[in-house]
Amino acid sequence: MSDYSKGVAFIDQGIAPISEAKISLLDWGFLHSDATYDVAHVWQGKFFRLDDHIERFYASMKKLHLSIPYQTEEVKTILNDCVKATGLKDAYVEMITTRGMPQAGSRDPRTCTNQFFAFAIPFVSITPSDKGLHLVISDRQRIPAESIDPVIKNYQWLDLVMGQFEAYERGAESVVVVDAQGNITEGPGFNIFCVKDGLITTPINGVLEGITRKTTMALAVESGYEVTQANIHPTYARTADEVFVTSTAGGIMAVTKIDDELIDNGSMGTVTRQLQIAYWEMHNDPDYSIEINYQK
Amino acid sequence: MSDYSKGVAFIDQGIAPISEAKISLLDWGFLHSDATYDVAHVWQGKFFRLDDHIERFYASMKKLHLSIPYQTEEVKTILNDCVKATGLKDAYVEMITTRGMPQAGSRDPRTCTNQFFAFAIPFVSITPSDKGLHLVISDRQRIPAESIDPVIKNYQWLDLVMGQFEAYERGAESVVVVDAQGNITEGPGFNIFCVKDGLITTPINGVLEGITRKTTMALAVESGYEVTQANIHPTYARTADEVFVTSTAGGIMAVTKIDDELIDNGSMGTVTRQLQIAYWEMHNDPDYSIEINYQK
Repeated sequence: MSDYSKGVAFIDQGIAPISEAKISLLDWGFLHSDATYDVAHVWQGKFFRLDDHIERFYASMKKLHLSIPYQTEEVKTILNDCVKATGLKDAYVEMITTRGMPQAGSRDPRTCTNQFFAFAIPFVSITPSDKGLHLVISDRQRIPAESIDPVIKNYQWLDLVMGQFEAYERGAESVVVVDAQGNITEGPGFNIFCVKDGLITTPINGVLEGITRKTTMALAVESGYEVTQANIHPTYARTADEVFVTSTAGGIMAVTKIDDELIDNGSMGTVTRQLQIAYWEMHNDPDYSIEINYQK
Repeated sequence: MSDYSKGVAFIDQGIAPISEAKISLLDWGFLHSDATYDVAHVWQGKFFRLDDHIERFYASMKKLHLSIPYQTEEVKTILNDCVKATGLKDAYVEMITTRGMPQAGSRDPRTCTNQFFAFAIPFVSITPSDKGLHLVISDRQRIPAESIDPVIKNYQWLDLVMGQFEAYERGAESVVVVDAQGNITEGPGFNIFCVKDGLITTPINGVLEGITRKTTMALAVESGYEVTQANIHPTYARTADEVFVTSTAGGIMAVTKIDDELIDNGSMGTVTRQLQIAYWEMHNDPDYSIEINYQK
C-alpha cells in the first residue's frame, strides 16, 4: 500500500501505482507536446472547484480537436477513484489528454487515437513555506497568443523553464516572463497579482485563465477591493505595495522580493494574508467543494 | 523478431521493442515539454550526416542545461545498436534527452536526473509519393525566438499542429506558419525553399537550422545556383518558379500547390529534381555516411 500513497494513475483503463504510470515515447503528446491537461486539488478530503477544472479541460480539448470516450461525470469518478486509491487527504490531481500515435507511416493527427490519463499525487506547493517568494522578471517572452492560445492549458513550458534557470542564476527562486511589449504575464504554473493604493491588478493578456486567479478576483471583490485586469509594467510590480501569485499548486502565495527590490519590506502583506485566509475558508463551501468518497 | 522489425528503443540502459518504449508520465520531458531531440536517418544501411545530428543534439542539450552520461561515440554505438536490432536498411533514428523527474515535493529542475532515450523505426517521409505537396500558408505565428531559441530542436509543436488542422480544413496536406512580420518560417518538421529567376531562397529567421536545409544549400551552390537566406513574403512563395521542402523525413520534396496557386503548373520542377538526385547521391559519399554494423 505504501506504493499507492506516493501516487496513483489511471492508465490503460485501470488504476496503477504512479511508478508504473507511463506513456509511449511515440505518443505525440510527448513527441509534439500535442496534449492538454488540467490540475485540480484535494484539500482535507474535498475536491476544490472540480467542475471548473473539468469544464476548462473539455474546452481545451475541443480547441485542440481532441476527444475522449468519457463524459464529465465519468472523469469525476475516475479522479475520485485515483484519490481514493492513494488515501490522501491533500492531493494534486491531474487529468491529461494526448493526441496518441498515428497509424504506421502516417503523419496525420486525424489517424491518432487520443489517450486519456489521470493521476493523483501528494499535494505540492510552489512555495514550501510562508516566507514569500523571491521572483525575477525575465526579458524572455511568454509564447504569444498568435502562436498558441494561452487559454488552452498546455505543456509548452520551455520559455518558463529557461526563465526558471535565469532566476537561479540571479539568486531568485522563480520567474515571471513578459509579452512582446514588455508587460509581465505569468510564471511557471502561476498567475501574478499586484496590490497598489488599494487597487488589485492582474495581467490581462497572454496568460492562462487560472481557476485560482478567477477565485482570487472574486474573493477580492467580495472583500471590497477594486480589482482590474490590465497591462502591468515591471516597474509597477517592483513598486507595488504587495505582490502575490496564485496557483492550484499552493493557492495564494506572497512575493516578498522582485529582482533586487523588497516588496512590503520583505514580509507578507495584509491584503495577501486576508485573501489567503478567505481562499482556504472557501474550501469548506459546499458550492465549491466535492467530498471524496474514500469508501465505495 | 517481427516485433523488432517495427522498431527498437534504447531505454533504461537496454534495447527493447518499440512497443515497450515508454516514459514516465511525471517526467518533465512530457509534463513541461522540457526536452530536446534529434533525428538522423539510415538509408541503404548507412547513417547520413550522423556527426552533424549528434553535434546539434549536444549543442541543444547544453543550451537547455541538460546532460547525459554518454560521450558522442557512445551515443553513436547506441544508435547503431538500435538499427542493428531492427535489421532495417532504411530507418528513422531519434535520440532524446528529457529533464527527468524532480525530487519528491520539489519543483526545481536542477534536482532532476536527465534521461536519455533513443529509437529506430522504419523510415518515414513527409510526402508518401513524388506527386508533390499541397501546402497552405497559415496566419498562425511560429513560436518566436524571443520565447524559445528555434535552434534548439524541441517538441513544442502546438502551433504547427494547429496549422496542420487548418491545412486539412482548407483542403491541403500541410502548412507553413509565419513570423510576427508575416514572413514564412517553417512547417511541421521541414524547412522551405523557393526558386525564382534562378535564385534559391530559404527563410533566414525563426527556423530550425535543419541538416537537410544545410545540405541542400551546399548542393545548390555546388550545382552553380545562387543561394540566399532572406525574409520570404507569402506572395513571393506563391509566385515562385519552384518550391520545395527539406527534412530528414524524406529529403527534398516538391511543393506543387500553395494555397490555391499551382506551383510550376503542379509538377516537380527541374531544379528540385536536380537537387533531389544530388541529395540521394550524396548518401554514397563516405565523408557523409557511416555504414551500420549489422553483425557485431
